[in-house]
Amino acid sequence: MDTADLGLPVDVPSTALFTDRYELTMLQAALRAGTADRRSVFEVFTRRLPEGRRYGVVAGTGRVLDAVENFRFDSDVLDFLAQQRIVDEPTLTWLADYRFRGDIWGYPEGEVYFPGSPIMRVEGTFAEAVLLETVILSIFNHDSAVAAAASRMSTAAGGRPLIEMGARRTHELAAVAAARAAYVGGFATTSDLAAGFRYNIPTVGTSAHAFTLLHDSERDAFTAQVQAHGSGTTLLVDTYDVAEAVRTAVEVAGKDLGAVRIDSGDLLLLAHRVRQQLDELGAKNTRITVTSDLDEYAIASLAAAPVDAYGVGTQLVTGSGHPTCSMVYKLVARAGSDTPDSPDAPLLPVAKKSMGSKSSVGGRKWAARRVDEHGVAEAEVVGTGTAPEELAGHQLLVELVRGGEIVGREPLDAARDRHIAARAGLPLSATQLSRGEPVLPTEYLPA
Amino acid sequence: MDTADLGLPVDVPSTALFTDRYELTMLQAALRAGTADRRSVFEVFTRRLPEGRRYGVVAGTGRVLDAVENFRFDSDVLDFLAQQRIVDEPTLTWLADYRFRGDIWGYPEGEVYFPGSPIMRVEGTFAEAVLLETVILSIFNHDSAVAAAASRMSTAAGGRPLIEMGARRTHELAAVAAARAAYVGGFATTSDLAAGFRYNIPTVGTSAHAFTLLHDSERDAFTAQVQAHGSGTTLLVDTYDVAEAVRTAVEVAGKDLGAVRIDSGDLLLLAHRVRQQLDELGAKNTRITVTSDLDEYAIASLAAAPVDAYGVGTQLVTGSGHPTCSMVYKLVARAGSDTPDSPDAPLLPVAKKSMGSKSSVGGRKWAARRVDEHGVAEAEVVGTGTAPEELAGHQLLVELVRGGEIVGREPLDAARDRHIAARAGLPLSATQLSRGEPVLPTEYLPA
Repeated sequence: MDTADLGLPVDVPSTALFTDRYELTMLQAALRAGTADRRSVFEVFTRRLPEGRRYGVVAGTGRVLDAVENFRFDSDVLDFLAQQRIVDEPTLTWLADYRFRGDIWGYPEGEVYFPGSPIMRVEGTFAEAVLLETVILSIFNHDSAVAAAASRMSTAAGGRPLIEMGARRTHELAAVAAARAAYVGGFATTSDLAAGFRYNIPTVGTSAHAFTLLHDSERDAFTAQVQAHGSGTTLLVDTYDVAEAVRTAVEVAGKDLGAVRIDSGDLLLLAHRVRQQLDELGAKNTRITVTSDLDEYAIASLAAAPVDAYGVGTQLVTGSGHPTCSMVYKLVARAGSDTPDSPDAPLLPVAKKSMGSKSSVGGRKWAARRVDEHGVAEAEVVGTGTAPEELAGHQLLVELVRGGEIVGREPLDAARDRHIAARAGLPLSATQLSRGEPVLPTEYLPA
Repeated sequence: MDTADLGLPVDVPSTALFTDRYELTMLQAALRAGTADRRSVFEVFTRRLPEGRRYGVVAGTGRVLDAVENFRFDSDVLDFLAQQRIVDEPTLTWLADYRFRGDIWGYPEGEVYFPGSPIMRVEGTFAEAVLLETVILSIFNHDSAVAAAASRMSTAAGGRPLIEMGARRTHELAAVAAARAAYVGGFATTSDLAAGFRYNIPTVGTSAHAFTLLHDSERDAFTAQVQAHGSGTTLLVDTYDVAEAVRTAVEVAGKDLGAVRIDSGDLLLLAHRVRQQLDELGAKNTRITVTSDLDEYAIASLAAAPVDAYGVGTQLVTGSGHPTCSMVYKLVARAGSDTPDSPDAPLLPVAKKSMGSKSSVGGRKWAARRVDEHGVAEAEVVGTGTAPEELAGHQLLVELVRGGEIVGREPLDAARDRHIAARAGLPLSATQLSRGEPVLPTEYLPA
């Protein structure tokens, strides 16, 4: 197994431990009861978008495929499960031979979603499919939260490039996945070297206040940076006095100075002042990057300011107020007890029935996006059975895994391009940052 | 390198890529300018607690030590940096030989902190210390956010055990760190097998609604689970009708049924009803676990309910509204240009001076917690120079790394015990869940 296939910048012997213990408890009981092999359909969906959000963004699909492929119980893992008496001997034997042999369909990465959209459908025996619950949800709940924030920020930024700079604000490996999800959502670059290494996302980075403070003067620091990196570098101009720093920067680097970065203060005011000063100094092509506690609203408020790029950290990697997505993984259909593993027998729809907000719709689902006469999306249609003919060309689920073999891998840029296209196909209100209802209603069509 | 030393359930060749590119940009410029070897002091602190929080919890220290030890640039990493032209040849040569050889002091893990508390102090050359910024901040910002939420939840739960169940709501490896941080903050167990594997945290887990739905009846499902796991298991009773499920559960498992779990609905009402029903059925020792969208407020509101354990997911791993901590890593002192690497020469305090909220206090700091005549903490005292004699016994920083060698490793239980003791030493208002000011003021003593 090549490191580059693993969804991480590190060697992972297996993703099988990214699993809640109860999956194994259920497995052991089902094996013993003879129900483990019943054909089953699980679906990933969310009952609601985060409050006020207009759409969600599917991100993590590629990482899910990596995780499924590497979901194996090697001897280290089996020893741990045995020593801790987490499962019994027959279950250990079953796990030693485990690999997923079923089928997975799902929304392709970068697609948008709405409440009830079946963004992934996992089919196989109960045993092989139930084990994947935790890791699939971890990936989608994290990655889609970051991608949704990224998408809003990229709308707010218009055509200006966005730099992902949140590695220091989140877990060091979540950061790598966040950079990937941000790229899907429309970001251009990342500061995170691990994300560059793992996903070929372009990396950028200049300097911190510490570099200026290390030197005996700001001029010394700028000179050191320009000598090492050329005049195309980006100089940080807010350690002491911004106007003085900009003057020094142009003196040191010349009129070809690549960019200046402003990381504190009133960004709107400073951007205007610095632009004017740069122009007066003849550095008309020197760009201005701003990077202080930005979110989509702050970015939007700088639309009229002479800013050339935005660096975003905290609010991006924490999903701009919504760090997780409430995705669930639910059994929606299974074989009857008379035809437990017949591939052709009809499946029984199942669903939790008790009170409260956690009930769900049973049955193996398809989904399509209905468009109006102008080609603008008007509804997310979800149904069981056969889809109506007029929606045949608008089906959302694509094949990702066939008989255990990954068939749905694609380059990350495909997901990024798809997101731009999918968002452009939504009603215009999708681009509003203000709180509101999902821009598409979800309609259920019974079989 | 043993996997068990790495802070992850996976083999990590190096933590060196968990780094923002600008660290390397600065390194190259400082190497070329001859300033890279200046002795430097960096400190980790936060300017403010999350709004309304009374105290912070230091978590991640042990993971930082692992990350520092494994921060090496192996050939894969160097090849990447060369191919991408991220640094020049002399810098690559320097990186190939890199390991941290300096000193680190810090608040021991589990300790509480306040705005300005120097929770870690990293001393060495500028070059060796600046490189560690990103990964140190990633770890503290994530882990301390989860531990702070865990601490509030454990206060709210009184003596009742808390189960960490958030793996599916966050990145799959962030989940492992979150389980660890939750344990430091007072949680008893985790659902996450990877956390059990890596950190020996006790794991627990029973079953999901899918297991009930897989079977032809709830009775079949309960029977399967009890046959596989014994009557001491926990049965999930809210798939259909709770009262009927409880009756069936006791019929199937007998009066020795270990526990029932309620995962939806009005938990307060259901806990009372289910307790009464269990008692009437003679299952007086059967425990009740509740697990639906809990946070510290929901837990507190169930204090008077007959609940025996709480399972917490989303709100724990997302820091209960505050998924990151605003920790920063700042150069606070450095050698003068005349004595760049003399270990005995006095260091110059440095600090960013420009406008806004990002200025900081220069100088290498100590910290102590002053207590009143009853032994209750009354102030966090932070100073430069020598601490006053009356605070000598209350110093907070301990030695963690000496000359590059880790000297501060300890078992995770030590951090957990320390947190309980540290929290108990705070004014009683620290246990209030309501919003308020930090319970201790931070006082700065100049040298």
